[in-house]
Amino acid sequence: MASKFFSERNLRFLLYEVFDLGSLTQYDYYKEYDGKILDMVLKAAMELAEGLLWPNFQEMDKNPPEWVDDQIKVHPSVRKFLEECGAGGWIGGGMPFEWGGQQLPQMITMGCRFIFCAANYSASAYPGLTSGAARLIQTFGKEEMKKIYLPKMLAGKWQGTMALTEPEAGSSLSDITTIAEPTDNGTYKIRGQKIFISAGDHDAVENVVHLMLAKIKGAPAGVKGISLFVVPKKRIDERGQLVFNDVVTSGIFHKLGYKGCPIAQLSIGDNDNCRGYLVGEPNKGLLQMFQMMNEARIEVGVGATAIASAAYYAALEYTKKRLQGRKLSTKDPALPQVPLIEHPDVKRMLLFQRSIVEGSLGLLVQCAKYADLSSVLTGEEKEKNELLLDLLTPVAKSYPSEMGLLSISLGLQCLGGSGYCDDYPLEQYYRDARIHPIHEGTTGIHGLDLLGRKVIMRDGKAYKLYLKEVQGTIRGAEKFEELVSYAQKLRQSLEMVQKVTDHLMDVQKKETPEVFLADATLYLEFFGIVCVAWQWLVQATAVVKALRNSPDGVEANFYNGKFFAFRFFFAYELPKIEGLAKRLMNGDGLTVEIRPDFFSD
Amino acid sequence: MASKFFSERNLRFLLYEVFDLGSLTQYDYYKEYDGKILDMVLKAAMELAEGLLWPNFQEMDKNPPEWVDDQIKVHPSVRKFLEECGAGGWIGGGMPFEWGGQQLPQMITMGCRFIFCAANYSASAYPGLTSGAARLIQTFGKEEMKKIYLPKMLAGKWQGTMALTEPEAGSSLSDITTIAEPTDNGTYKIRGQKIFISAGDHDAVENVVHLMLAKIKGAPAGVKGISLFVVPKKRIDERGQLVFNDVVTSGIFHKLGYKGCPIAQLSIGDNDNCRGYLVGEPNKGLLQMFQMMNEARIEVGVGATAIASAAYYAALEYTKKRLQGRKLSTKDPALPQVPLIEHPDVKRMLLFQRSIVEGSLGLLVQCAKYADLSSVLTGEEKEKNELLLDLLTPVAKSYPSEMGLLSISLGLQCLGGSGYCDDYPLEQYYRDARIHPIHEGTTGIHGLDLLGRKVIMRDGKAYKLYLKEVQGTIRGAEKFEELVSYAQKLRQSLEMVQKVTDHLMDVQKKETPEVFLADATLYLEFFGIVCVAWQWLVQATAVVKALRNSPDGVEANFYNGKFFAFRFFFAYELPKIEGLAKRLMNGDGLTVEIRPDFFSD
Repeated sequence: MASKFFSERNLRFLLYEVFDLGSLTQYDYYKEYDGKILDMVLKAAMELAEGLLWPNFQEMDKNPPEWVDDQIKVHPSVRKFLEECGAGGWIGGGMPFEWGGQQLPQMITMGCRFIFCAANYSASAYPGLTSGAARLIQTFGKEEMKKIYLPKMLAGKWQGTMALTEPEAGSSLSDITTIAEPTDNGTYKIRGQKIFISAGDHDAVENVVHLMLAKIKGAPAGVKGISLFVVPKKRIDERGQLVFNDVVTSGIFHKLGYKGCPIAQLSIGDNDNCRGYLVGEPNKGLLQMFQMMNEARIEVGVGATAIASAAYYAALEYTKKRLQGRKLSTKDPALPQVPLIEHPDVKRMLLFQRSIVEGSLGLLVQCAKYADLSSVLTGEEKEKNELLLDLLTPVAKSYPSEMGLLSISLGLQCLGGSGYCDDYPLEQYYRDARIHPIHEGTTGIHGLDLLGRKVIMRDGKAYKLYLKEVQGTIRGAEKFEELVSYAQKLRQSLEMVQKVTDHLMDVQKKETPEVFLADATLYLEFFGIVCVAWQWLVQATAVVKALRNSPDGVEANFYNGKFFAFRFFFAYELPKIEGLAKRLMNGDGLTVEIRPDFFSD
Repeated sequence: MASKFFSERNLRFLLYEVFDLGSLTQYDYYKEYDGKILDMVLKAAMELAEGLLWPNFQEMDKNPPEWVDDQIKVHPSVRKFLEECGAGGWIGGGMPFEWGGQQLPQMITMGCRFIFCAANYSASAYPGLTSGAARLIQTFGKEEMKKIYLPKMLAGKWQGTMALTEPEAGSSLSDITTIAEPTDNGTYKIRGQKIFISAGDHDAVENVVHLMLAKIKGAPAGVKGISLFVVPKKRIDERGQLVFNDVVTSGIFHKLGYKGCPIAQLSIGDNDNCRGYLVGEPNKGLLQMFQMMNEARIEVGVGATAIASAAYYAALEYTKKRLQGRKLSTKDPALPQVPLIEHPDVKRMLLFQRSIVEGSLGLLVQCAKYADLSSVLTGEEKEKNELLLDLLTPVAKSYPSEMGLLSISLGLQCLGGSGYCDDYPLEQYYRDARIHPIHEGTTGIHGLDLLGRKVIMRDGKAYKLYLKEVQGTIRGAEKFEELVSYAQKLRQSLEMVQKVTDHLMDVQKKETPEVFLADATLYLEFFGIVCVAWQWLVQATAVVKALRNSPDGVEANFYNGKFFAFRFFFAYELPKIEGLAKRLMNGDGLTVEIRPDFFSD
């Protein structure tokens, strides 16, 4: 195993030097905290990751969950980890003190989650899901519901899930058929099938609490008829005992990776004995669920970045140790071989990984900061932060998911044949990470979300705020001689974003939605590259400031390396927008036009 | 399982309509053949693939080889397949009648190999390796050696391998340490370690014949001291019996995919009792081995394209059946859901796959035709075909390998969550194909080969011939109204290739080899895109001709679909050269300059 899976130095750089985490403590909501305590939280996360998650990373993959007698059995370390998460307050990290949470800024909970995911993505999914489910109950649930579920969930004794997908309804949630029939006592009888439910059942907890989408009998068709329910595996009976709630695990999926966390198929109410508890208002389920989904989408971005981080450090360690070949200018076979990292093409692959990992993480911390500010600010400032977060969520989910795959693939490539074998962890990262462009909305869905919803919503308000943010960064960077040319490049790139967006707005007016959105996935890619370039300029500005203080030793290496990764992104990644813009400006409706039967042979 | 893994129609289109396979039968060497017989060969390959390979595709993955008592046990279908290959003449397909071969054109043997690989890549590797090893013996071996080995190998009773890599020498072959000590009787005592030997040992054959690189005691350092040996697992003793030759299987590698074929570690001569037989001249081993390596490189391209083909048809089948969502312009939930293939973004993903698969296959058949012509022509014409093949080999290996991964990944994406699960074959294709950018020279090595060797060799002779070939296609296409604008685009792209290449030639003169070759991998990508665009224009020219004959039904669909895939490549893939050219024209030496210790944190 490699000995490192993330850079503490880089995480600190982002949280403190770039995004000024400490400034949040000025707000009432975070007044209990100071920098020192937040630092301790990070340290504790690292200890937990190193002590419990990392050592079980390969082990959990080799011994995946099994479905035995309608019950899924998971690796024994899961129970231990969930207990630790409960005891350490990790599950309720972001929730208010009032409900047993830690009321931590999202920047910190994200940082901790990043560490967990990098150490062991499968394991990190369990508390992550419970956390999201608990927040949903806390936001929309009735007092009584909160009292029943939150303490157990935050203690890691009950698992939370998102139960959305059905055999005939994946991306198209409007087609769910799980039905909820009102009963006399205010509860609902639930009946249906759910598939692909992460941590949907397992033996490391006493109970599983599904946050489930269903339709109340007689509800309107489509998304407007979807309601949200708490449907526990075991419900509490009149005597306060946990009893079977007619939620049966009817299968487990065998996956490419991410094997440490079971994905279950559930049969609900086959014996007409499943009770569900309405969360919030009827028919508002999807809207409410979006809180959890949006959080989960950002968390997918975090998970994707984290796996790419672990892959990068595994590749880095290998390329430093492994001797192979000689410098091209000194091919004398009598000379000793040099470490792989001496070869420019290997350094290119490493810089690619670093630029993706650190660029993505910057974007994610930026999103966390928007979330934190939107929760403490009011009025227009609150709205601004909300809108920016909303706009960037599909990017923060999809860019790391898609680019993370390429990053990990190049990490694997750095090891050559060894990367393809399970003596090294790269092949597992390659498998684990492939889920990210799929779950919590496929990349295609996020393309539609960005172009078809977020960019145009409220007459482009969020989009315009975003342009201003980027322009602000550019103006700030231009004050530094070292950054002038890069600021210039980003300005040109942003102009290209505007040009392409204007063009597409024009298409929207003139053409069908199919034509308008045909290349939405490419627009997402295009938008994402510029967005990450922006984040690199944000980071580079902090780097230049730090370098002016003449750091030395490893500190100097850190900042210098960072500056190379920044330059790399601008030199190698940013030019990719040229080809994308060319395509996006030339919407010929090719993919709309081609008939399915032309794919006949 | 999907029901289709390749398109017979498309293979026929390439072999007959585009590359005029029949024209080869005018040459003496192929005079035994006519179109009908060649057709029967293809048909027979399909039968074997469908009857024996395809049914064991998933089975061989689930039951990978095991290493038990120094012997690797493989799936029982391997023995049966090798017997069939022997009986059907598949192993010696490309070899002369004189040595028991079928003397088939490479266009046909490649077509058959493509079918085998698409049906079951792991299984196809066994006869493929034997075939390459046998050809090497046939070309460079002594008469006696041929008589001993060829009949057994061509019968599928003895396995052939390429034994190059060692624990400390992978990409850097000059560093091999396996030693060959001359004995009195003209044989050599061999001693060393080999790793990553595909089909390096297994129980489906009586013997394994390693074509092994080693250094004769006292040979010059580096590649100039490498010799080629036949080192059988069992040698024939004085009484004509097969006896142990001190080649011990010391391990097996557990791989991400391609699991049906074992990759072995070998300990050679630990008991000082291993005999090797020199092939060809001493110290010319690498040069000779390059015959097999070059063939193997093209075959990697074939394998990569074949897996992408199988993934494409699996995705296509799913998207036609699976109902999900509605057209964007008619989102009424009361309407029934439509098949996935109705969505433009899904059609985009399918067209991407088709454009990569069929574009790559076109390039590979083009290479096979160059190979065939170089073997029947003489003088300048022979040389021309040899040079073109030589130039295009790194492209034909790497483009399908790299783009095949993306193609398969989008195939998987078409299935959403189901693509991530082993109920469908996509996840296996995703794993199987990842070997291709690694084996037979990593993509980085092929970048160096293309830019650092092939483009500049003999004062750019091969490169200039290539430009002429492309220009010829452009001129031919311009005669068709439907193709004028595409021909124009390819001309501009080719000019960009020239501009970038000229620039790099300039860099070569002024800078160190490190700087010159720093972005060789990107150059390979850039060059490859234009190369495949060229092949698409070659195919489109045939399509336009065919469409003028007003075909109907499935034939019309085939040609129309093909034309869309061609348009897609020009609209979506070709623009990628813009960003690449921008980078390649701006060699700032970034990856040469960065110090390894800047990667410290």
